[in-house]
Amino acid sequence: MKKPWSGRFTEKTDDLVEKFTESVSFDWRLWPYDIKGSIAHVRMLARTGLISRADAGLIVKGLQEIESDIRAGRFRWRLELEDVHMNIEASLIERIGPAGGKLHTARSRNDQIALDLRLFLRDETKGIIKALSGLLRGLLRLAKGHLDTIMPGYTHLQRAQPVSLAHHLTAYAGMFLRDRERYEDALKRINTLPLGACALAGTTLRTDREYLAKVLRFDRIAENSMDAVSDRDFVVEFISASALFMMHASRMAEEFVLWSTEEFSFLQLPDAYTTGSSIMPQKKNPDVAELIRGKTGRVYGNLVSILTLMKGLPLAYNRDMQEDKIPLFDTVDTVKAVLQVLKPLITKARFRKDRMRKALLGGYILATDIAEYLVGKGMPFRDAHEVTGRVVRYAIESERELYELTIQELREFSELFDEDLMEMLSIEDSVRRRNSLGGTAPEEVRRQIEEMEALL
Amino acid sequence: MKKPWSGRFTEKTDDLVEKFTESVSFDWRLWPYDIKGSIAHVRMLARTGLISRADAGLIVKGLQEIESDIRAGRFRWRLELEDVHMNIEASLIERIGPAGGKLHTARSRNDQIALDLRLFLRDETKGIIKALSGLLRGLLRLAKGHLDTIMPGYTHLQRAQPVSLAHHLTAYAGMFLRDRERYEDALKRINTLPLGACALAGTTLRTDREYLAKVLRFDRIAENSMDAVSDRDFVVEFISASALFMMHASRMAEEFVLWSTEEFSFLQLPDAYTTGSSIMPQKKNPDVAELIRGKTGRVYGNLVSILTLMKGLPLAYNRDMQEDKIPLFDTVDTVKAVLQVLKPLITKARFRKDRMRKALLGGYILATDIAEYLVGKGMPFRDAHEVTGRVVRYAIESERELYELTIQELREFSELFDEDLMEMLSIEDSVRRRNSLGGTAPEEVRRQIEEMEALL
Amino acid sequence: MKKPWSGRFTEKTDDLVEKFTESVSFDWRLWPYDIKGSIAHVRMLARTGLISRADAGLIVKGLQEIESDIRAGRFRWRLELEDVHMNIEASLIERIGPAGGKLHTARSRNDQIALDLRLFLRDETKGIIKALSGLLRGLLRLAKGHLDTIMPGYTHLQRAQPVSLAHHLTAYAGMFLRDRERYEDALKRINTLPLGACALAGTTLRTDREYLAKVLRFDRIAENSMDAVSDRDFVVEFISASALFMMHASRMAEEFVLWSTEEFSFLQLPDAYTTGSSIMPQKKNPDVAELIRGKTGRVYGNLVSILTLMKGLPLAYNRDMQEDKIPLFDTVDTVKAVLQVLKPLITKARFRKDRMRKALLGGYILATDIAEYLVGKGMPFRDAHEVTGRVVRYAIESERELYELTIQELREFSELFDEDLMEMLSIEDSVRRRNSLGGTAPEEVRRQIEEMEALL
Amino acid sequence: MKKPWSGRFTEKTDDLVEKFTESVSFDWRLWPYDIKGSIAHVRMLARTGLISRADAGLIVKGLQEIESDIRAGRFRWRLELEDVHMNIEASLIERIGPAGGKLHTARSRNDQIALDLRLFLRDETKGIIKALSGLLRGLLRLAKGHLDTIMPGYTHLQRAQPVSLAHHLTAYAGMFLRDRERYEDALKRINTLPLGACALAGTTLRTDREYLAKVLRFDRIAENSMDAVSDRDFVVEFISASALFMMHASRMAEEFVLWSTEEFSFLQLPDAYTTGSSIMPQKKNPDVAELIRGKTGRVYGNLVSILTLMKGLPLAYNRDMQEDKIPLFDTVDTVKAVLQVLKPLITKARFRKDRMRKALLGGYILATDIAEYLVGKGMPFRDAHEVTGRVVRYAIESERELYELTIQELREFSELFDEDLMEMLSIEDSVRRRNSLGGTAPEEVRRQIEEMEALL
Repeated sequence: MKKPWSGRFTEKTDDLVEKFTESVSFDWRLWPYDIKGSIAHVRMLARTGLISRADAGLIVKGLQEIESDIRAGRFRWRLELEDVHMNIEASLIERIGPAGGKLHTARSRNDQIALDLRLFLRDETKGIIKALSGLLRGLLRLAKGHLDTIMPGYTHLQRAQPVSLAHHLTAYAGMFLRDRERYEDALKRINTLPLGACALAGTTLRTDREYLAKVLRFDRIAENSMDAVSDRDFVVEFISASALFMMHASRMAEEFVLWSTEEFSFLQLPDAYTTGSSIMPQKKNPDVAELIRGKTGRVYGNLVSILTLMKGLPLAYNRDMQEDKIPLFDTVDTVKAVLQVLKPLITKARFRKDRMRKALLGGYILATDIAEYLVGKGMPFRDAHEVTGRVVRYAIESERELYELTIQELREFSELFDEDLMEMLSIEDSVRRRNSLGGTAPEEVRRQIEEMEALL
Repeated sequence: MKKPWSGRFTEKTDDLVEKFTESVSFDWRLWPYDIKGSIAHVRMLARTGLISRADAGLIVKGLQEIESDIRAGRFRWRLELEDVHMNIEASLIERIGPAGGKLHTARSRNDQIALDLRLFLRDETKGIIKALSGLLRGLLRLAKGHLDTIMPGYTHLQRAQPVSLAHHLTAYAGMFLRDRERYEDALKRINTLPLGACALAGTTLRTDREYLAKVLRFDRIAENSMDAVSDRDFVVEFISASALFMMHASRMAEEFVLWSTEEFSFLQLPDAYTTGSSIMPQKKNPDVAELIRGKTGRVYGNLVSILTLMKGLPLAYNRDMQEDKIPLFDTVDTVKAVLQVLKPLITKARFRKDRMRKALLGGYILATDIAEYLVGKGMPFRDAHEVTGRVVRYAIESERELYELTIQELREFSELFDEDLMEMLSIEDSVRRRNSLGGTAPEEVRRQIEEMEALL
Repeated sequence: MKKPWSGRFTEKTDDLVEKFTESVSFDWRLWPYDIKGSIAHVRMLARTGLISRADAGLIVKGLQEIESDIRAGRFRWRLELEDVHMNIEASLIERIGPAGGKLHTARSRNDQIALDLRLFLRDETKGIIKALSGLLRGLLRLAKGHLDTIMPGYTHLQRAQPVSLAHHLTAYAGMFLRDRERYEDALKRINTLPLGACALAGTTLRTDREYLAKVLRFDRIAENSMDAVSDRDFVVEFISASALFMMHASRMAEEFVLWSTEEFSFLQLPDAYTTGSSIMPQKKNPDVAELIRGKTGRVYGNLVSILTLMKGLPLAYNRDMQEDKIPLFDTVDTVKAVLQVLKPLITKARFRKDRMRKALLGGYILATDIAEYLVGKGMPFRDAHEVTGRVVRYAIESERELYELTIQELREFSELFDEDLMEMLSIEDSVRRRNSLGGTAPEEVRRQIEEMEALL
Repeated sequence: MKKPWSGRFTEKTDDLVEKFTESVSFDWRLWPYDIKGSIAHVRMLARTGLISRADAGLIVKGLQEIESDIRAGRFRWRLELEDVHMNIEASLIERIGPAGGKLHTARSRNDQIALDLRLFLRDETKGIIKALSGLLRGLLRLAKGHLDTIMPGYTHLQRAQPVSLAHHLTAYAGMFLRDRERYEDALKRINTLPLGACALAGTTLRTDREYLAKVLRFDRIAENSMDAVSDRDFVVEFISASALFMMHASRMAEEFVLWSTEEFSFLQLPDAYTTGSSIMPQKKNPDVAELIRGKTGRVYGNLVSILTLMKGLPLAYNRDMQEDKIPLFDTVDTVKAVLQVLKPLITKARFRKDRMRKALLGGYILATDIAEYLVGKGMPFRDAHEVTGRVVRYAIESERELYELTIQELREFSELFDEDLMEMLSIEDSVRRRNSLGGTAPEEVRRQIEEMEALL
C-alpha cells in the first residue's frame, strides 16, 4: 500500500517501523469525530470556493457511507495506513475517486488529530459531568435519609466525635461537586477549535475558521497556529481533574472496604456487588470498592505519562505526541466505569445503624462536649481541654465510661461541673447541638444538602 | 516542655517521635497567616460573646507582639512544640497569661492549618498570576519587535515552513495565558474558608463563620465541616496547574538550549545569564534554561507526592496530611523562581536574525507553498502533495534548491507550473501570504498579539 | 567575588542568576566526601608526577584544616561560589596560595560531583542496609514471641483463615529482606569510581584511576568517560529501591493504624508513640504510623522527579542534573528517619491477644478447613467448596456459628461429614495443621524465622 | 453461568459488576503459564497422594487439549468466568467431568495468579536480556567501525572537546550493560515459587512445594505464605528496571532526533526508518526516535501506577492487585517493541563524518588542550584555566580561531607558550592524546569495547 506522503521517498517503510509507528490500532475509535470534522471542513472549503459544491457533495456522501460501514462493522482498518485519518481518506478516494484527494486541502494531520481529540474529549467530559451529577443526586438523596443515623466521626481513624451518616456522605458530595466544577473549567479550554492551523503556520489558501467554529460548536478558536497543533494542555488538564476525582473515589472506596469488615460492620454490600473466594467458601469480598481504589493508580500513572511525554518538547508537533491517546483513552474509560459502578454501590449498600450506634459507646467520644461545657461556664479552652483530659485518664484508669462518673468525682477536677452536665452526655444531644454552620446537627446538614441539590 | 494536649497521657513523647512528627521546621513560614487567622478568630469570638472584649484585646495585642518578634528575628521556634500553631499559642500564653488559653476556643488545629494553608496559597497564587502577567507582557513586547524576523518553523525538529519569530514566541504566550486562566480557576476553590469546621463536626459553641469569611475576604465557605478539614484539593489543583506551567517552561527552555548551540546559533544569551566551565575555558553554558528544564521534574514529583499522600485516606483529618506542605512549598518556590528568571532570560537574549535567515536556505522549506500553488491551480491536494514530493526528490537528486529548478524542469512534473510560481518562491512572500486566522503573516500575528495584550 | 571560570566572560553573573543556579545551599552537606575525594586525587597527582610532593603535602594539609573548620562550624559558605567544590577550592587557595590552584588538575566538576555523590550514597546505603538488618532482627525476635498468638488472617480485609501473629509479622520480614537485597544490588553499581573521567573525554595528562579506585575503595571503575559523568542510574536505582521499601513500610503502617482503631483493637501503641488532639482530649492518635504512610508519597515523588529530570538528556553532563541532589537527599533522609522510628514502633507496641482471639469467633473463619476436610474424605475440591458454601449460607440464615451445627444438619449437605469433623473445628488445631512449607503452623513459622535469622 | 464460588451467595452478580471486575479480557494472555502451572500442580497432587494417578492423567490430558484449542483459536473466553484461571478450569470440568474439580485442590487463585505472573515475567525478562545483548553487540560492532570518526563531545549541548563517535556510542553501551545487570538482579527475585501458599495461610493438605519448584525450575521458594500471595515486588522491580532502560533509550532517541536536524546533520536515517508529512512534501521525520522518546512517559506512568496501587495495602491479597497486570503487560510490550526497533535504527543510520568534522572547526574546542599544555609546563591548573579563558576571549574579539593566533600574541598571555603548542592544536592529536583510562583515544576506546564484548 502506497503511503499518501510517499512522493519524496525512495525506500518503502520497514515493516517493523510500520508496526512501531502505527496508531490506528487505538485511534480508530476517534472515527466519529474524524468524519464529523471532515464534513465540516469540506463544507467550509466549498463555502470559500477552494473546492466546488459538487466535489463537496461527493465527499460528504462518501464520508457518510464510510460512517455507515464502520457502524455496521464492515470497514476494514489497515495498519499500513497508519492512523484513523489516512484509513478514512484512503477509503474515500477509493470510493469517489480524485475528488477525495481534495478533502485534505488546507489542513494537516496535525490540526486534524487535535480536532478529533477535542471533539472526542468534549463529548466525554460532558458525559462525565452528567454522570457526576447523577452520582451526586443519588448520594444526596441517600444522605437525606440518614440525617438521624449517628455514627462516630473519625480523625486518625480514631473515634473523635459523633456525626450523622448524612454529614459524612455529604462530605463526599462536596468533593464530587468540586470535581464537577473542575471538569467544567477544563471544558472551557477543551472546547477550542484547532482546525485551520494546518501543519503549523496556517495556510496561504482562503479558509474560514470562524465558520468551522460555529458549525462544530466551539466556544473559542486556538488562534496561534503553532500553539494550536502542539497544545495538549486540554489532555493534561482533563487527566489532572480525573486524578483528583479518582483520589476522592479511592477515599470513599477505602471507607467502604473498612466499613465492610467484620470489625466495623457499618455496611453490608449486596451479594450482587461482592464476589467470592475460589478457596474460602465463607468470603464475601468488597471487590468493587477495592478495584476502584486500585484503579486510582492507573489514572495517576496516566497523568505522569502525559506530563513526561510533553516535557521539553520543542515546537511544534512532534511524533511523541501520538502517545497522548493511550493515557487519555484509558483515563476516560476508567473514570466512566468507576462512575457507573459507584452510584449503585452507594445506593444499594445497607448501612447498619445498630453497629454504628454501638460504636458510639465507649471511646470517650463526648470528651469534647465536656471541654466545651467548661468553656461555656467560662473556663479558658486550654484549661478546659486539660481538665477534660485528666477526667478521661481518670475514667480509663477506673475502667468506666464518662457518663458513669459521679458529679462528686468530676468536681475533684473542676468546681464548674454541675448537674446540667449529665443532660449533655447524650449522643443525640451532642449531635443536635453541633449546629454551627456546616456542623453535624440534622437541621444544619439538611440545609447543606438542599443547598447542594439546588446546584444540580 | 509540656504538650498542650498532654492531659490524657501518662508517658512523655519519645524524643525520636517528637523529631519524626514535628512540622515547625517547615510550617513556621505560615506564621503571618496563622497570626492573621487567629486575630480574625478572636474578634469573632468576642463578637459572639464567647470571650470578653477585654480578653480579645489582650490576645490581639499579644499576637501583634509575637508578629513583631518574629519579623525581627527574636522569636524562638521550639521543635518540642510541634508546629507553628502551638509555638505561637504557647508564646501567647507566656506573654498574656490564662487569657491566651481562650484563643483556641471553638477551633481545632485541623481547621486552623487548613486556614493557614489557604491564606498562604491565596497570596502566592495571586503573586504567581501577577508574575505570569508580567512575563506575558514582556514576551508580547518582544514578539512585536520580531514580526519580520523570519525563521524556520519546525515539526519533528525538522524545518517545515517559514514562520516569524513573533509567531513562535506568541505560541508560548498562548500557553502562559492558559496557565494564568488555570491559576485563576484554582483560586476560586483556594479562596474558601475552612475555619469554624473545628475538629471535624462543627461546634456546640456560638460561632459566626460568615463574619470570618468577610474579614478574611473569602469568597466561599467550606461548609461541610468533615470535608473542610480533610480537603486538600486546592493543594493538588495548584500543583497540577504548576506542573502544566513547568511543562511549558521546559519546552521554552529546551528551545533556548537548542538555539544556543553552535549548530542552531539562533540565540545568544548574555554572559550574565550563562555560566562557565571549571575545566573548559571556552564554554558558555545555558545553565538557567537547563535548570528550568530540570526543575520540571521536581514539580511533577511534587504532584505525584501529594496525590499518593491523599489516596485512600478515610475521613476526616489524618496525620499523613501534614506532609502536604513539603510538596506545596517546594512547588510555590520553584514556580516563583522560574518566573523570576524567565522574563529577563527571554528579554535579554539576543536573537540572531542572520542565522535564522541562513537556516531558511536549503531544506526545501517552501515545498508546501508549491503544493498549495498547485491546489490554487485546481489540482486536488493529494495529487499536489504527490507531485511536489516528486519535485523535491528530483531537486535532492540533482543537488539543487527548489528555486534553482527551471520552469521547463518543473513542467515535467505538472503542466500547471507557470512563471507566476517563481514569485512565490520567496521566503518573505511565503510568510506574508500565510495570513489565515492564526497564521504566521505579520499583520495576522500583530492582531493576535494585540488581542492578547488586551486580555492582560 | 570572581568566579574561577570567569576568564572568558566580560559581564558579571546576574544576581538573580547566581541565586537561581547556586547549589551550595544544599550540596554543602557533601563536604566530607568532597574533601576525601580531593585528598585522594591530590595524592594521585603527586604519584604520577603531575604535581610535586611538596605541593601535594600543602594541599592535603589545607584541606584538612578546612575539614576541621567545617566540623567546628567556622567555615563560611558563600552562595556566590556556587557549589561545595568551589567553596572548598577557593578557601584552599586563600589558605595556601597558588599551590591550591593545582588541586583541580586533571579533573572537572563533572567527575568530581559524581564522585562526591557516589561516596555519599555508598555510606548512606550501607547505613540503611545496617538499619534494615536491625529492624529485621527486632521484627523476627518479636515474631518468635508470638508463635502461638492466633489472629484472623485477612484477604480483601475480610477475615479469611486463622494465622499466627508470628506468621503475619514474618511476612513483613520477607519484604524487608528483599529490600536489603535490592539495596545490596544497587550498592554494586553505586560503588563505582567516576573520578578521572574529567569533563567528558578523559585527559591528556598522566593519571592513575586504578590507584584512585584502590584508595577510595571502589569495586569498579566507570570507564567510559562520557558515561561516567552523565550517569545517574545509581541515584535512580537507590530511589527505586527506597520507593519499594516505603511501599512495604506503608503497608505495615496501614495495619498499625487499622489495628489501633477501637474497632480492631489488636494493638496498643505506647503513649510515647502517639500524640494527642488540640481539641479532643480523649484522642490518642497513631501519628507515627500515619506519617510513615504519608511519607511514602514523598519518596514516590522523588522517583518521578529524578526520572523526569533524566528523560531525553543528550550526552554528557547537563546542568539539569544539578537537581538530582534534592530528591536524593530527601529520600535518604526519609528512609533513615522511617527506619529509625519503625523498629521501636514495632517492638514497643502491645499486641492484644484477647482481642485477636475474640476476632476469630464468628465469621465462619474455619470454612476452608471444612472444605479441606471433605477433600480429605475424597470429594473433589470444587464440590467440597460448593458444599461448604452451602453450609455457611445455612449457618448464616439460622444465625449460628459453624461449630453450633449438628452432624445431622451437616449430613443434609454431605454424607461425608462425620464426628471427627468436630475435632477440627478448633482454631488452634486449624493453625497447627496448616503446616505446609511456609504455612502458619507454629513449628513451620519458627523454622522460617530461624532461616531468616541465619541470613542476617 | 454459575460462578465456581457461588455456593454462599443468594443473589447473582450484577452485570455491571461482572464487567467491572472481570480480568479475562487482559489476563487471558497468561494462559500458557496457567496451564503449565496447573500441570505441575496436578502432578504434585498425584505424587503426594491427594489425587489419584488416574485423575491426574485425565486432568493433564484435558489441559493439553485446552492448550491446543487456545493455540488454534478455538477456545471461547467467557467474561462471566472472570479470569483466565476460571475459564480454563471451567472448560476442564466440561471436558473431563468431576475429576476436573480436583485440580484446584490445595491451591487458591491467590497463589495461582502469582505463579502465572512470575512464569510469564521470567520468560519475558529472559527475552529482554537476550534482546539487550543483541542490541549491545550491534552497538559495539558499530562503535568499532568509528574509532577514528571524530565529532564534538558536548556538555550543556555546547561543544566541549573532540571525542570519537565510537566513544560516544560506547557510553550508551555502558548504560545498556547496566540495564542488563539490573534485569538479571530482578530475575533472581522474579524466579521464586509462590504456588503452595494457597489463599494466605498454607494448607492442611499434604503438598510438596520443593517438587513444584524443581519441575517449574524456580531457584527459590516464596516461603511465608502471606507474603507469597501479597508480594508484587517483582512487578515493581521489573518496571523500575524498565523505566531506567527507557530513560537511556530516550537519551539516545533525543540525540538521534537532534543529529537528524538540518542544523546538526550528523545522521541520516534511512527512508525506511522515517515517515513523511501529510502536508509538507519535503519532510523526512525521525518518527521512530520520537516515539521511543514518547513511550518513556508510558513506562514511567506504569511505574507510578503499580507503586500507587500497592501503597498502604494491608495483608494479604486485595482485589486492587488485579490491576497489576495492565502496567506490567504494557511495560513488557513497550520495552520489547523499543528493543526491536532500536537495533536496526542504530545500525542502519548513516553517520556523516564530514558534518561531524566540520562541527569541530570553530568553537574553540581545543581550549582545554591549551590549559593542559600550560599545566604540563608547570602552571597551576587554575591559572592555566584563567589564562586560556583570556586567550579565548581575545580570539573571539579578534574574530579568529585559536590556531590562527601567533605565538607572539599568545606570549602576551603567558611566557610558557612555545612553538610546540602548534603541534597540539590538531583535532586528531587532541583525541589521540586523551588516552587516560576510559578516555577518548582510539586505542583506549577499542580496549573498552573489547572488554564489553567479552562480557556478552
